[in-house]
Amino acid sequence: MTAEILCIGTELLLGNITNGNARWIAEQLAALGIAHHRQAVVGDNRERLIAELQAAAQRCQVLITTGGLGPTPDDLTTEAIAAAFGAPLVEHPQVWAEIQARLAARGRPCAASNRRQAFLPEGAALLPNPTGTAPGMIWTPRPGFTILTFPGVPSEMRAMWQATAASWLQATGLAEGVFASRMLRFWGIAESDLAERMADLLEASNPTVAPYAGSGEVKLRITARAATAAEAEQLLAPVEQEIRARTGRLCFGENEDDLASVVLQQLRRGGHTLAVAESCTGGGLGAALAAVPGASDVFLGGVIAYANRVKQELLGVPAEQLASHGAVSDSVAQAMAVGVRRATGADWALAITGVAGPSGGTAEKPVGLVHIAVAGPDGCCSEGVRFGASRGRCWIQALSAGEALNRLRLALLD
Amino acid sequence: MTAEILCIGTELLLGNITNGNARWIAEQLAALGIAHHRQAVVGDNRERLIAELQAAAQRCQVLITTGGLGPTPDDLTTEAIAAAFGAPLVEHPQVWAEIQARLAARGRPCAASNRRQAFLPEGAALLPNPTGTAPGMIWTPRPGFTILTFPGVPSEMRAMWQATAASWLQATGLAEGVFASRMLRFWGIAESDLAERMADLLEASNPTVAPYAGSGEVKLRITARAATAAEAEQLLAPVEQEIRARTGRLCFGENEDDLASVVLQQLRRGGHTLAVAESCTGGGLGAALAAVPGASDVFLGGVIAYANRVKQELLGVPAEQLASHGAVSDSVAQAMAVGVRRATGADWALAITGVAGPSGGTAEKPVGLVHIAVAGPDGCCSEGVRFGASRGRCWIQALSAGEALNRLRLALLD
Repeated sequence: MTAEILCIGTELLLGNITNGNARWIAEQLAALGIAHHRQAVVGDNRERLIAELQAAAQRCQVLITTGGLGPTPDDLTTEAIAAAFGAPLVEHPQVWAEIQARLAARGRPCAASNRRQAFLPEGAALLPNPTGTAPGMIWTPRPGFTILTFPGVPSEMRAMWQATAASWLQATGLAEGVFASRMLRFWGIAESDLAERMADLLEASNPTVAPYAGSGEVKLRITARAATAAEAEQLLAPVEQEIRARTGRLCFGENEDDLASVVLQQLRRGGHTLAVAESCTGGGLGAALAAVPGASDVFLGGVIAYANRVKQELLGVPAEQLASHGAVSDSVAQAMAVGVRRATGADWALAITGVAGPSGGTAEKPVGLVHIAVAGPDGCCSEGVRFGASRGRCWIQALSAGEALNRLRLALLD
Repeated sequence: MTAEILCIGTELLLGNITNGNARWIAEQLAALGIAHHRQAVVGDNRERLIAELQAAAQRCQVLITTGGLGPTPDDLTTEAIAAAFGAPLVEHPQVWAEIQARLAARGRPCAASNRRQAFLPEGAALLPNPTGTAPGMIWTPRPGFTILTFPGVPSEMRAMWQATAASWLQATGLAEGVFASRMLRFWGIAESDLAERMADLLEASNPTVAPYAGSGEVKLRITARAATAAEAEQLLAPVEQEIRARTGRLCFGENEDDLASVVLQQLRRGGHTLAVAESCTGGGLGAALAAVPGASDVFLGGVIAYANRVKQELLGVPAEQLASHGAVSDSVAQAMAVGVRRATGADWALAITGVAGPSGGTAEKPVGLVHIAVAGPDGCCSEGVRFGASRGRCWIQALSAGEALNRLRLALLD
């Protein structure tokens, strides 16, 4: 028993807009526990739309469409659905009256084209649209196959879903139980390495465990299905515990956590403050911290020491150290961290200096080499890391910021 | 002659992520002039994937897939493609050698599962992945039907597209004629406002003009089709000129330009340097500048003055000014800009101080209010701007950085 999503609109095929509707509906179906195996996008083309509708009728029990319900000539959804299943269109006079009243209330003229929106295939029920002009439909053109149509405007679609469609779908009995899901987040391990450690769990069917790679970060999603939310949570918990036991400190958080929010929370608990000194990241580490709401009780700020002169004058890095070790070195990273800690009075400080490329690399200090220092109440340490040149400048910058946060996370755990 | 897009990944069906890849590829296909009538999404399921591949082979000439190329067991794309068209998988030893070398260079262990990524269907050509571990393929399993596979990681997919796939697709002759395309970029105007000013041009069929909204930025893509590139360019040029005439300084750049790269180029021409002082953006403005390769000849760095104490101690903002005007004010923004200009010796300085929210807003200084100062050789000025609270903290931070860069761009034009 499965559902499919069909999004209709040439603007999607031209790449003018991102298909946020598909994601939103997918999330809703998952939360309702309705299996959903396929999405499609077609343009405002009658033949292709009919072909897609007829093919979907062979595969799924519920088809959810978005788009093509407006009054303009390229809005073809209702007509194509009627044609695909050989039903005549019939007018719903009360819908036409409501459309006229709604447009009048907004002071809009009522074009003849609006009247098309009052027609639905014979036998179709209204799917009311509380915030827009035209309703959708709930129609079962063949036994075991029902279509729900929504407009493409996200706010109207969501309002219709929440007001009517969600409870209708729940009542169908299509949902096979309830889903519970948790995302665990890791830093410092490759996706393939993590997957290998979890090989047995990745094979399991309930809960399922699936890995995802991000920018430096790797994630595992655990999803359990059961008759009730409590039972689903009971299935999920031991798998989560097992994954955490196998990965230890590699797992830095869950669900909406990111490294910055986790580190800020660690520091907040201890009443500690943080400052940053950034060379090759140019402010990216600070920006990651400042992106977290409420960062200001922990994060004081710092210095973007992109030029060596700024390293000297604002952070007190000795000129001779820059000359003898080079700006990309453990000793300069340490001097930057110690310098910004002193300048801001922060309890902890992070410093980053590296070669982000694409130029500026040497055999000894290649593009992707980054030195990261952590300074705290008990001293300062620095270590180099090589991110490689192949993924480019912004990748190196993003990973440098993540790695710096992760080092502080680990230091704070000790 | 048409292309289809098939995005593979259970995370898309669960609604975990938005399908940004489909939009990006759709935009690229439109720019190449390749007709594209259909997109589909399936999960990591071998049977459904095979069915989708075989159905696509009946409909289109080029199928572009994303996702499922990783090393984990749920990465099924390559294997399913081989099975769908009855070809054996063969190992490419040089790919395996490259995967091993790449992982070694990053200091990562090479898992046995990585070796799967070196297998492609017999007869398939490599689609090189310059920034990731596994390549994709370009394979014609049946006459007149070619598959191009890409990983789901957007940065890798885009790099592969730009390095290899775009020119391959251009060479196929799938495009009807030759397309010339230009993206014009605007700051300081709403998409609807820009579209209204261009209403007549948006109706035209060759060149077409299409608006796109970004984060603060708005874009217009002009696309002309003709028998030769020179003719297409001849069609395009007068439309570009007309748009530029109608928009003046609102147009800040074209194609791959961004505000940071444009401003850095303006400063570079004059031999000038730049520093930043950031409060509510926390380093985001500096990071935007540092993201541009070669920024270091212009961008010196600056101060992340998130806490008021840092504004006082590193930027010399008087405590009484903070007390009487508040940190979010023109006078503090100016003091920050002047302070960082003095501290770094830069010719120009930008300062940002605002309420990024979600908390901290007041009736007088609501969330979304940001003061931005520009200091240069001839003095300093500051002005407040209201971005509103509705789109959230990161939106306010991103728009603040963009607005600051745009103000400097306009100041440098004078």
